[in-house]
Amino acid sequence: MTHQMDSEFIERFGGYQDGQLAIVLYPEFTALDVFGPHHMFINLMGERTLLVAKTREPVISDTGVYVTPQLTFEECPEGLLVICVPGGTNGTLRAMQDQATLDFLRVRGEQARWVTSVCTGSLVLAAAGLLEGYQATSHWVVRDLLSEFGAQPVNQRVVVDRNRITGAGVTAGLDCGLEIVARLRGNTYAEGVQLLSEYDPQPTLNAGTPEKSSPETVRMMRAMFDGFVENVKQVSAARLSAKAAPAE
Amino acid sequence: MTHQMDSEFIERFGGYQDGQLAIVLYPEFTALDVFGPHHMFINLMGERTLLVAKTREPVISDTGVYVTPQLTFEECPEGLLVICVPGGTNGTLRAMQDQATLDFLRVRGEQARWVTSVCTGSLVLAAAGLLEGYQATSHWVVRDLLSEFGAQPVNQRVVVDRNRITGAGVTAGLDCGLEIVARLRGNTYAEGVQLLSEYDPQPTLNAGTPEKSSPETVRMMRAMFDGFVENVKQVSAARLSAKAAPAE
Repeated sequence: MTHQMDSEFIERFGGYQDGQLAIVLYPEFTALDVFGPHHMFINLMGERTLLVAKTREPVISDTGVYVTPQLTFEECPEGLLVICVPGGTNGTLRAMQDQATLDFLRVRGEQARWVTSVCTGSLVLAAAGLLEGYQATSHWVVRDLLSEFGAQPVNQRVVVDRNRITGAGVTAGLDCGLEIVARLRGNTYAEGVQLLSEYDPQPTLNAGTPEKSSPETVRMMRAMFDGFVENVKQVSAARLSAKAAPAE
Repeated sequence: MTHQMDSEFIERFGGYQDGQLAIVLYPEFTALDVFGPHHMFINLMGERTLLVAKTREPVISDTGVYVTPQLTFEECPEGLLVICVPGGTNGTLRAMQDQATLDFLRVRGEQARWVTSVCTGSLVLAAAGLLEGYQATSHWVVRDLLSEFGAQPVNQRVVVDRNRITGAGVTAGLDCGLEIVARLRGNTYAEGVQLLSEYDPQPTLNAGTPEKSSPETVRMMRAMFDGFVENVKQVSAARLSAKAAPAE
């Protein structure tokens, strides 16, 4: 259930800017990383939330679902209010090495009011050079690797450092999205968005972080991503050596 | 970040059934109602989570995003482990009156191990006759209307009554999805899914229910849906009169 905020609500709580928010799709993105913040953003009447990608062809998620982008990188308007990058695993690795994606993020990120990510999306921001000297977070499995890209990892669900807002793994996109709405429109407005999305979470289990989960489960989960962690390190090493010896 | 559970995890926690979970798409569905539970389901290695719709054409969400279904109603396998219906507003009203959708839900619902919904998706289940005599929930704006379809509304985030599992508004799909995983695989397994999706929610605001929100915000939000509520009542009235005087 979604509703564009109506005019009484908008006027009562401070009007709106006429701006655009862009969420980037790349092959094998994690769908919930996109649709968590997307749902929070989309109620910003007057602002348009757009899914952008290299081309307008449907983009496959990491679980095989095709989602159609609304604009290409080239068609994406300048001066975004928010740019947001979702996570993934193998697709994220490729995005971290894809020059067109990195160029788009660097140029649009430098102009955007808020530069944001969910889950391993922060690794893509980092690979684009947008987190150097910033505090940031990511999925718990790879959070510490942010330091290899010059960022300072913080064990927190949502990390705000100047105009960078990064979220932890997957579901943190909801908290991150709500925080971004609050920064754009103020708390009272964001509370309306929270009520409309009935965001009063009550998981019946309590194992959402490594600290709260059993050591055995943490060990098994980490093991699933050994290859991914290794690959991220290689991307970082290649990036550093390219920096040290730039092409002639 | 997603990962198909690997074999060590599966074997350690009780193996898996070879079954299918289906999430129904209809025009103007709410995307987060789909991708919340989808993310929780998709880690059930061995089970396939499928997006099903009337045709294989991309289906538009209530915020203008096109998602491509993976199977048609006809192609959907029999004997589903889980059938799940997302919410929406105008599209939901149409789904509640669409014979092909209602027939699909009734037939597949009667065979499914778990019949589930997120947000106003419970109104579609109710219109298909699947909640008569059951406790259920829905988005807070329309929850009480469930009684017009013979269900018993309960003010709770996730309601389990026999094999019906219904979730409250939009974001409740995450809690609902995790609960379904726990019912299918047990708590230890579900805790693994929770850790992988880092589901340790920490909204920075506390206005996710009408009880927690300001009366002014609740009033404005309710007012936005006056038309929708009226339309749901009309669908219910038409349904009751059709029942009272069946076609000759």
